[in-house]
Amino acid sequence: MTTAKTAITPPTHTAPPARFSHGVRKGAILQVAGQVGFLPAIEGRPPTPAGPTLRAQVLQTLANVQSVLEAGGASWEDAVMVRVYLTDTAHFAEFNELYDAYFAALTEPPAARTTVYVGLPAGLLVEIDAMAVLA
Amino acid sequence: MTTAKTAITPPTHTAPPARFSHGVRKGAILQVAGQVGFLPAIEGRPPTPAGPTLRAQVLQTLANVQSVLEAGGASWEDAVMVRVYLTDTAHFAEFNELYDAYFAALTEPPAARTTVYVGLPAGLLVEIDAMAVLA
Amino acid sequence: MTTAKTAITPPTHTAPPARFSHGVRKGAILQVAGQVGFLPAIEGRPPTPAGPTLRAQVLQTLANVQSVLEAGGASWEDAVMVRVYLTDTAHFAEFNELYDAYFAALTEPPAARTTVYVGLPAGLLVEIDAMAVLA
Repeated sequence: MTTAKTAITPPTHTAPPARFSHGVRKGAILQVAGQVGFLPAIEGRPPTPAGPTLRAQVLQTLANVQSVLEAGGASWEDAVMVRVYLTDTAHFAEFNELYDAYFAALTEPPAARTTVYVGLPAGLLVEIDAMAVLA
Repeated sequence: MTTAKTAITPPTHTAPPARFSHGVRKGAILQVAGQVGFLPAIEGRPPTPAGPTLRAQVLQTLANVQSVLEAGGASWEDAVMVRVYLTDTAHFAEFNELYDAYFAALTEPPAARTTVYVGLPAGLLVEIDAMAVLA
Repeated sequence: MTTAKTAITPPTHTAPPARFSHGVRKGAILQVAGQVGFLPAIEGRPPTPAGPTLRAQVLQTLANVQSVLEAGGASWEDAVMVRVYLTDTAHFAEFNELYDAYFAALTEPPAARTTVYVGLPAGLLVEIDAMAVLA
């Protein structure tokens, strides 16, 4: 017998472009799907990324991950893994600075990895997914 | 003290080309290794991908993930994360249509992300891994 | 109510270049961040990758993952997923040989997947992350 799976959709989020959930909670696991830097959804407006700077988009992407964590009853303190996907190796250094500052207050940051690849839709510079444990 | 780890190999599957398991169950976690679109294994025949269309290969790949989930006592309803790897950004739109149709009946689809990269062996267009929670 | 998260830093490891943990334990999950082939840290010397062969760097990378697993109270037997990132498709065959030999003694190897991408810092040929379940 297994527990039910609960889909998590923060009110700030646009509907997913395909059949997936922004977040899922099952048992002790809260999985956040890959988030990008879209601004909070506005009825009737297409999804719009924060920008134009890398900084604005990274901070919005982290905020979007946090929204899913919080809508699922978790916080960054519960995150055990963060996966970061960049589109350009030239963004590594600035991204790391932004990431460090964002997590400066966490006593024990999540594990993490960064992959550079070129597959994001036009205008998107970064994608981040995360897994949290609530147990 | 920890529970035993159980390797999962569906009867339809070819032996892994390296020392990994198609699936692993330990505690509440069922992890499915990256699956590709090979047709059910036939003794004496090398692994053969479904095809030649993207559609045929995507559906076979999803069926192969499902075989591992089911051999481990789980279903798509238990999956919390699905990671999809494509080889060509031009496949995004068609892939999303196939994926949506495949999961149309799920009330709460898993979280997911899609990465485009070019590292799959010749003839393979897609790879999918998944994590399920049985707890 | 949730259990505390514990960061894991083996004594052989250099400080992470950004705000992440080499490993994190929370509840039943032990997540190992992406490890590369740096030799054990020496005070005052910058991180230095094993080499120059792929073999030396792969074995060091696997040893570094193992150090985090062990510092967290786990072993490879507890690992359910290993994610491998290579920088060159030409390394696939040799990598698989090394990986198979390394895990020859495991009765039930973890699930795994290999992604080729080109985003590692200069001199690094491989990165590996892993998730273990202690429950």
